Amino acid sequence: MADKTAITPTRDQNFPEWYQEVITAADMAENSEVRGCMVIKPCGYAIWEQIQSQLDAKFKATGHKNAYFPLFIPLSYLEKEAEHVAGFAKECAVVTHHRLEAGPDGKLRPTGALTEPLIVRPTSETIIGAAYARWVQSYRDLPILLNQWANVVRWEMRPRLFLRTAEFLWQEGHTAHETSDEAVKETDQMLHVYEEMAREHLALPVYVGRKSASERFPGAVDTLCIEAMVQDRKAVQAGTSHFLGQNFAKAAGIKYLSREGKEEHAWTTSWGVSTRLIGTLIMAHSDDDGLILPPRVAPTHVVIIPVTPKPDTKDAVLEACNKLAAELRAQKFHGDPVRVDVDTRDINGGNKNWEWIKKGVPVRVEIGPRDLAGGTVFVARRDKGSSSKTKESHPAATFAAGISDLLQNIHDSIYERALAFRNENTKVINSKEDFYAFFTPKNADKPEIHGGFALAHWNGSADVEAKIKEDLKVTIRCIPFDKTPEAGTCIFTGEPSQQRVIFAKSY
Amino acid sequence: MADKTAITPTRDQNFPEWYQEVITAADMAENSEVRGCMVIKPCGYAIWEQIQSQLDAKFKATGHKNAYFPLFIPLSYLEKEAEHVAGFAKECAVVTHHRLEAGPDGKLRPTGALTEPLIVRPTSETIIGAAYARWVQSYRDLPILLNQWANVVRWEMRPRLFLRTAEFLWQEGHTAHETSDEAVKETDQMLHVYEEMAREHLALPVYVGRKSASERFPGAVDTLCIEAMVQDRKAVQAGTSHFLGQNFAKAAGIKYLSREGKEEHAWTTSWGVSTRLIGTLIMAHSDDDGLILPPRVAPTHVVIIPVTPKPDTKDAVLEACNKLAAELRAQKFHGDPVRVDVDTRDINGGNKNWEWIKKGVPVRVEIGPRDLAGGTVFVARRDKGSSSKTKESHPAATFAAGISDLLQNIHDSIYERALAFRNENTKVINSKEDFYAFFTPKNADKPEIHGGFALAHWNGSADVEAKIKEDLKVTIRCIPFDKTPEAGTCIFTGEPSQQRVIFAKSY
Repeated sequence: MADKTAITPTRDQNFPEWYQEVITAADMAENSEVRGCMVIKPCGYAIWEQIQSQLDAKFKATGHKNAYFPLFIPLSYLEKEAEHVAGFAKECAVVTHHRLEAGPDGKLRPTGALTEPLIVRPTSETIIGAAYARWVQSYRDLPILLNQWANVVRWEMRPRLFLRTAEFLWQEGHTAHETSDEAVKETDQMLHVYEEMAREHLALPVYVGRKSASERFPGAVDTLCIEAMVQDRKAVQAGTSHFLGQNFAKAAGIKYLSREGKEEHAWTTSWGVSTRLIGTLIMAHSDDDGLILPPRVAPTHVVIIPVTPKPDTKDAVLEACNKLAAELRAQKFHGDPVRVDVDTRDINGGNKNWEWIKKGVPVRVEIGPRDLAGGTVFVARRDKGSSSKTKESHPAATFAAGISDLLQNIHDSIYERALAFRNENTKVINSKEDFYAFFTPKNADKPEIHGGFALAHWNGSADVEAKIKEDLKVTIRCIPFDKTPEAGTCIFTGEPSQQRVIFAKSY
Repeated sequence: MADKTAITPTRDQNFPEWYQEVITAADMAENSEVRGCMVIKPCGYAIWEQIQSQLDAKFKATGHKNAYFPLFIPLSYLEKEAEHVAGFAKECAVVTHHRLEAGPDGKLRPTGALTEPLIVRPTSETIIGAAYARWVQSYRDLPILLNQWANVVRWEMRPRLFLRTAEFLWQEGHTAHETSDEAVKETDQMLHVYEEMAREHLALPVYVGRKSASERFPGAVDTLCIEAMVQDRKAVQAGTSHFLGQNFAKAAGIKYLSREGKEEHAWTTSWGVSTRLIGTLIMAHSDDDGLILPPRVAPTHVVIIPVTPKPDTKDAVLEACNKLAAELRAQKFHGDPVRVDVDTRDINGGNKNWEWIKKGVPVRVEIGPRDLAGGTVFVARRDKGSSSKTKESHPAATFAAGISDLLQNIHDSIYERALAFRNENTKVINSKEDFYAFFTPKNADKPEIHGGFALAHWNGSADVEAKIKEDLKVTIRCIPFDKTPEAGTCIFTGEPSQQRVIFAKSY
C-alpha cells in the first residue's frame, strides 16, 4: 500500500485536481465570484513579491526604468494595428458607461454612455505607443527603455488559477529604438533575462526559441519565448519577448528625424512575464505532499519548530530557537538576509510540521530538549519529500554558517530533477506514426500520462500545424535556439526541413 | 526686476499652472488621451517606488501582509452597503461587455453583454469583504491584516495630475477584528503610520484628526485623516483611515463564532494613501525653479556634474567624480545606500545644472579642474534655491562621510519651512465676519493668495457646513486631535461648541 499523501488526488491520479489542491493546501489563491478573476492570498502574493523584486533588479541592471500607463485603451487605438485587434477582440472587457443611476424600478443601472468604448488593457502596446509618438522627435530621444508592473485583463472562458485567469498581474517592457538591429538585440537580451530568471531563481530549465508564425503575438514580427515542461509533460509558455518591427510604430506614429535628417519610424519591442510563473513553478516542482518552493523565491527559507514536550525545558528550547533564528538571519543567500520564521504557535507539532510541508518551505528545523542536550538541530529538506526518514541531525554550532550552501544545494537539486524529468520526456521523433502514438494516451485509466516534448522535423507550413493541433491538441512550442540546425525531412509531408522543432501539448 | 525663474508662471502668478509646469519641467507625468487618466513617467514613478517600498516596510512592521483582489466588482456587491454605493455611483467605470465584433458596417462594437455589469473598483471594501466572509468562521481566524497595492478608478470630471485622476495608484489596507476596540486601535495605528510617513519621509507637517459626518468615507462609522497645507494655502487630504464598524461586515456577511460560542459580525477597517501624495509634496515644497524633493523619497540623492572645460584635465575630473560617487554610494541614509548619479552627458553645463534643479535633486556637486587642484568639491543644496550664490566649496576628503547628515539637514529644513508656512497661515478665528473675510480674495489680481487654515468653533451641524461650502467652497478638513478641547461658541450660530475645528479650501 502506498504511503498516505497530504494532497489528494496525487499527480498520477488527476494532475489538474492535484494542482488545484496544492494551491489550496498552501493557501496561495482561490477563485473569486467574479468569473475568471482570482484572489491571490498572502502566501501566493509573497512569492510574486519575490519574483517582482528580483526581476525588477535585472530590468534596472539592463538599463530599464519603470513607468505607468493608463488601464483603459480607447477602441480606436486598439484598431490601429489590424492583427493586434483581431488577436484580442474576442477576450476584451469593455467599459461603456461612467456612472450608475437608479432606473424607474429603483435598481441601479449603467448611465453616462461613453462616446467611445474603452477596453481594459489586455496588453499595452497601443496606449504606450501613443505616448512614445508624443515623446520621440529625434534619434536623440531613442532608445526608450521602459517597463510597467500592472494588471491586465483577457476574458478567459476556461480559467485556471495562476496559469490562465481573466485578470492577471504581470510586467510588460516596451522599448523603442533607432535601428532594427538594436531592437532585435533588445528582444534577445530580455529573453536571456527571462531564461536566467527561470533557471537561477525558479529552478526551471526552459527551452529558448522562436515561435512559429501562427503562434506569434498578434502584430509582432517575431516572438521569442521560454518554454518549461511541467510534471504532466505539458509545456507552459513562461515568458515571451517580441520584436515588433515597425508595425506598432507605424500604427501609433512613432517617428523620428534620423542622423541623416530623414523621417523614420522607430523599431519597437515588448516582453512580459506574469503570475503564470507561479503556476509553472507549482506544476514543475511540487509533489504529492504539496508545494516545493525554489529557495530564491521562497518567502520563508527556514522555519524553526520548537519541540516542547515538557514545561521545564520549554524556555530553554524557545531560547535556542530564537538564537538560531538570529544567527540564520545574519547569513545571506544571494545577497539577501536569510528569511526565517519561528513557529511558536501552541498547536499540535505534527499538524504544524505538515502545514509547512504543504507550504513548501525549503528547510524545516526542529529543536527539542534532546537536541539541546546534544548540541544538535534536526533538519528536513522539503525537496527530499516529507518522510521523517529524510530528517538529519546537524551540529547546532555550524548549521547557520552552512545555510547558504544548503539552500543553493536545494535549488540545484530541484533544478536537476526538473531537468532530468524534461530530458527523459523529450524524444527525438522521426515518423508521423511515432508522433501520433507519442501524443495518444496508452492507458485509459491514466489519460494524463503520455506525451512530452517531441523534437521533430517540420516543413514550416501553417496548415500542417493546424492539422496537428486539430488532431492532437499539440502545437509547436518553439523553434529552439540551442539545437544545432540539422537538415532532414518533415515527418508529416516528406518535404525538406531545416531544423527540428519542439511539439507539445500545453497550458 | 525679479530674477528669471525656471518655471513660468510663478506660484504667485498662477498657482495651478505653476503646478502643472513644475511637473512638466521635472518630466514626472502627463495627461493621456484617455479622459482623466495620466501617464506617470519614469521621473514621477521612481518617487512612487520610493514611497511604496518605505510604506510597505512600515505595513509589514505593523503585522500586515500583502494580497491581491479582483479589479472588477459585481454591481450587486457594491449595492450591499447603501451609503457606500450612493457615494461612488456617480463616478463608476462600468464594464458591460466582454468582446468586440465587427457590425454590418465593418466597425468593431462591444458584444457579449454581461448578465451583471462589473464596476472597475473605486475601492475594494465590498469585494474584499466577500473574501473575508469566506475566510472567517471563528474568532481564531481574526484578525485579518491585509494590504493591497493596486490601481483604482473614480471617474473625475475635473482631473488634475496626481491630485485627482480617473485612475490612480494606491494602497488599501483592509482589516477585520474580533472587537470594536481592536478595530478602533488599528484605525488609529494606521493614521499614525501615515502621519509618520508624511513627517519623516515626505517632510510634510500634517494635522491629524477626524472628519465631520458629512465628509466621512461612504459607509464608514468614523474617518480619520491627515491634512497637509500646500503653498496656495489650500488643504490636501493626504491619507485616510476608516473605522467601518460592522457596516461592511454585515453587508458582506463576515461572521464568526465568538469565544462565548455566539455568532457575531466582525469589525473592520480600511485605510489608504495614493499617488496624490506626490501631488501634495510638489505643491508643498517646490519653488519657482521647479521641484524640491525631500531626500528620503528622492530617487537620486546626489548628482555629480563633471566640469570639463579642457581636454587635458577631463580624464582626471571624471575619475574624481566616479571616485566620489563610489564613496557616497558606500554611505547610508536611513539604512539605504546613498543614491548617486554622475551626469557625464556631453551637453552644455548650464543646461545640465538647470535640468537637475528642475528635477529637484537634493544635492548637486560640481567637480572641475580647480576643485581637483584645491582638493574641494562645489556643493549646492536644492532646498536653498537655485542661485549660484548658495553654492559652497567643501573639502573633497570629508564630503562623503557627512552626506547622511547633510541629507537629514535638508530634510529638516524643508520640513521646518513647510511647518512655518502652515503656522503662519493657520488663524484662530472668532467671528463669522472674520471667517468670511479670511476666505475671500483681497486682491483681484492675485485671487489665489488668501485663506489658509481657520481654527473656529462650530456647533456640529451639517447644515452649517453645507452653507459654508456653498458660500465659500470651504469645508471642515478635520476635527484635530492635537488641540486641547476648548469650549466656546459656534461663530456661525452662536450655539455651544466643544472644540475648534479646521476649515479650509481644499484640493
